[in-house]
Amino acid sequence: MRETFHEELDTIIGQQLQMATLVKDAIEKATTALLNVDLNLAENVIQDDDAIDVIHHNLDDRVIDLMARQQPVASDLRALVSALRISADLERMGDLAHHLAKLARMRYPNSAVPPELVDVISSMGSAASRITEKMAVVIEFKDTTRALEIEKDDDEMDQLQRKLIGALVHPDWVHGVETSVDMAFASRYFERFSDHAVSIAQRVYYMATGEFAKN
Amino acid sequence: MRETFHEELDTIIGQQLQMATLVKDAIEKATTALLNVDLNLAENVIQDDDAIDVIHHNLDDRVIDLMARQQPVASDLRALVSALRISADLERMGDLAHHLAKLARMRYPNSAVPPELVDVISSMGSAASRITEKMAVVIEFKDTTRALEIEKDDDEMDQLQRKLIGALVHPDWVHGVETSVDMAFASRYFERFSDHAVSIAQRVYYMATGEFAKN
Repeated sequence: MRETFHEELDTIIGQQLQMATLVKDAIEKATTALLNVDLNLAENVIQDDDAIDVIHHNLDDRVIDLMARQQPVASDLRALVSALRISADLERMGDLAHHLAKLARMRYPNSAVPPELVDVISSMGSAASRITEKMAVVIEFKDTTRALEIEKDDDEMDQLQRKLIGALVHPDWVHGVETSVDMAFASRYFERFSDHAVSIAQRVYYMATGEFAKN
Repeated sequence: MRETFHEELDTIIGQQLQMATLVKDAIEKATTALLNVDLNLAENVIQDDDAIDVIHHNLDDRVIDLMARQQPVASDLRALVSALRISADLERMGDLAHHLAKLARMRYPNSAVPPELVDVISSMGSAASRITEKMAVVIEFKDTTRALEIEKDDDEMDQLQRKLIGALVHPDWVHGVETSVDMAFASRYFERFSDHAVSIAQRVYYMATGEFAKN
């Protein structure tokens, strides 16, 4: 019985890792679609979001089914509740990549990203990708060191957002309001994406140590 | 045993209603703080968000404890999983009201809202308040009619957001980029606030009918 439970928990973690792989792919492609004005890639991200949602529902059904069949208590129950929350975070990360791809599509054949912001958007994309990769390691190996690192990576993302907003409101800004609103939203999507990765890392940290990660 | 479970479920619903009351209060005060440039009211919302978070954690602990003690299956288990998701949505609604209040505080003693946008921000605030009130009725009475109405109210919120963004990107816009970025974010916070209420209404609808609400 116990072995079965832990085998099933491994399957759940496997599905979380599948979601993490798709989410990483989505945020990388969405960033490239924005930077390279690539409509096909944007469409690709928009379509692939359904696959993330399917695994999300499948994973939640599996967790709830396991709760009903195995009647877990204590740390096993908390692990399953945590799994529901992690899959919700991953699903939302997929949504945010999807929003970025829709922004690229909406402005096509123009670029949503003006030349001065290419570097900061590119850095936000790289940070998001790096955070997602680290998050997958945290999920797979319950790696508490990397869980703490993700909070620092998120600080870097916040700084990038401040830098981007600073450029928008600077007197030298010449691209008008529409572009500034697009870029403000884009920065928000990256920043929220990263927040959800932090939230996942914090849950894994708590499950592994019984303590909340110090901010 | 069964009676105890349903009594405990009633207590959980009571706590959700408490959260809904605080969230409605928060979004109304945050809107007023923005429109009336009221720093005290903004501080009030920022401080009160902690109370929402406390009930949120307390409610989740209660739900997980109930899962462990009563080992529910089938619809009882789904009701508890749903309760965890509803409390997460309510907590996030509180965060979004908190973001709006912080925007009012950040621009104080100036107004974050330019005169031309007073009406649309006021309408977004009223829509958010009405949606939250209806959501509380949906939670309390499992009112499926109002659950469907909330989706229409959310369409109205989306229209208000489009109207606001339209004003920002209009050639007549004279308030510059900083104000446009502020207002774009404000509209996003209202819109997401409303999305979470829709999500709660859909969960209650599903629990009550066993079917997903048609969009």
